[in-house]
Amino acid sequence: VELPAHTVKSFSEELELLVGDVARMGGVAETLLVDAISGVIRRDTALAEEVIARDERADAAQRTIDRRALEILALRQPVATDLREVIAALKIASDLERIGDLAKNISKRTLVLNRDEPIHLTRGIERMGKMAAGALKHVLDAYIARDVTAALAVWVQDEDLDAHYNSLFRELLTYMMEDPRMISPCAHLLFVAKNIERIGDHCTNIAETVHFLVTGEPVVSQRPKTSVAEE
Amino acid sequence: VELPAHTVKSFSEELELLVGDVARMGGVAETLLVDAISGVIRRDTALAEEVIARDERADAAQRTIDRRALEILALRQPVATDLREVIAALKIASDLERIGDLAKNISKRTLVLNRDEPIHLTRGIERMGKMAAGALKHVLDAYIARDVTAALAVWVQDEDLDAHYNSLFRELLTYMMEDPRMISPCAHLLFVAKNIERIGDHCTNIAETVHFLVTGEPVVSQRPKTSVAEE
Repeated sequence: VELPAHTVKSFSEELELLVGDVARMGGVAETLLVDAISGVIRRDTALAEEVIARDERADAAQRTIDRRALEILALRQPVATDLREVIAALKIASDLERIGDLAKNISKRTLVLNRDEPIHLTRGIERMGKMAAGALKHVLDAYIARDVTAALAVWVQDEDLDAHYNSLFRELLTYMMEDPRMISPCAHLLFVAKNIERIGDHCTNIAETVHFLVTGEPVVSQRPKTSVAEE
Repeated sequence: VELPAHTVKSFSEELELLVGDVARMGGVAETLLVDAISGVIRRDTALAEEVIARDERADAAQRTIDRRALEILALRQPVATDLREVIAALKIASDLERIGDLAKNISKRTLVLNRDEPIHLTRGIERMGKMAAGALKHVLDAYIARDVTAALAVWVQDEDLDAHYNSLFRELLTYMMEDPRMISPCAHLLFVAKNIERIGDHCTNIAETVHFLVTGEPVVSQRPKTSVAEE
């Protein structure tokens, strides 16, 4: 069938643009996360300030995706796979926006930490940061490739990040008990660690969305979570 | 027009059922929050365990809302106000599910806190808990009444909750410095306070959704947020 003259873009082109927006927003969130982690590890105040300023780009990307998705729902009234495509874009954009916010919060705490003497306990933070950045990269690749197996691998691996968080929590508490001057910086590092752990949770949400997008079904089994790290 | 014989429910009845589901899920989240706060204040282990078990109801409610919303989108292909109604239900259910998770996490930390000696610094937690429960009640009322003014009042008042969080953060750090035995329980209380602060953020998200639902426009102005409480 020929498109009516007033239709500038085809439906499938519109869906491609939407997926492209989500992929680009994923890139923005990845950069925010990697830079936020570098900032806290290297005590880089300028980089932390940059992350804080750049988070607005993730917010703007989410607004664009929300607007485009609502337009498609209203004007194209998609069903089946196409409907799931639009809902998935809305859900993933919401998780990516939260990841950007959490990266920004890590950078805000970096500014506070950098006002005091350097402390050398950020190895655990660095390790957690690498794991979270890896999870985000892999789940975004799984979204683009429509790869349910790769998505579920990210979902399962989040347990390691939770385990690292729990051991870092105990480690930081020990430092606080040994030296009261460590209490304030370690409290901020506790929240930095918690933010990274939550970024991992958002990656598992995205993995679940990829599963729903491809199969039409929600993920049914429960990952075993037993600690207070869970929210 | 007469409905075809096979149409069991009218479109407007389906939307009413969806709004009813969201309102009921709001009630579940409210009870979880109020009980989680009571549990931590009164050191009530049984109540905390009940909250942890009951959070599953909020998760189930979200799954029901997601399923019903997707069915409406696929079969009724709503536009304009009706489309916003469905999108709003999806968004609010997602915020309510997070509120349930955060209440559950408060209760998990209550179990940990109750293993140690009682500490008497939970006044600030009680105050924050009351503010958050008030915000949730008011924003759910605003959703049912389609009251943008009431929704925006909740949105503005979240600043008070942030201010309380920041002062409680400093207070808890002081207690930790005065007595190292307080470090572990106070670290858990820091996260309890943070969870309540985040519940406030989810209430402001719901307020923004009510604004979008009624007006069709996102909230444009930014609340002033300057502290690290922000994520």
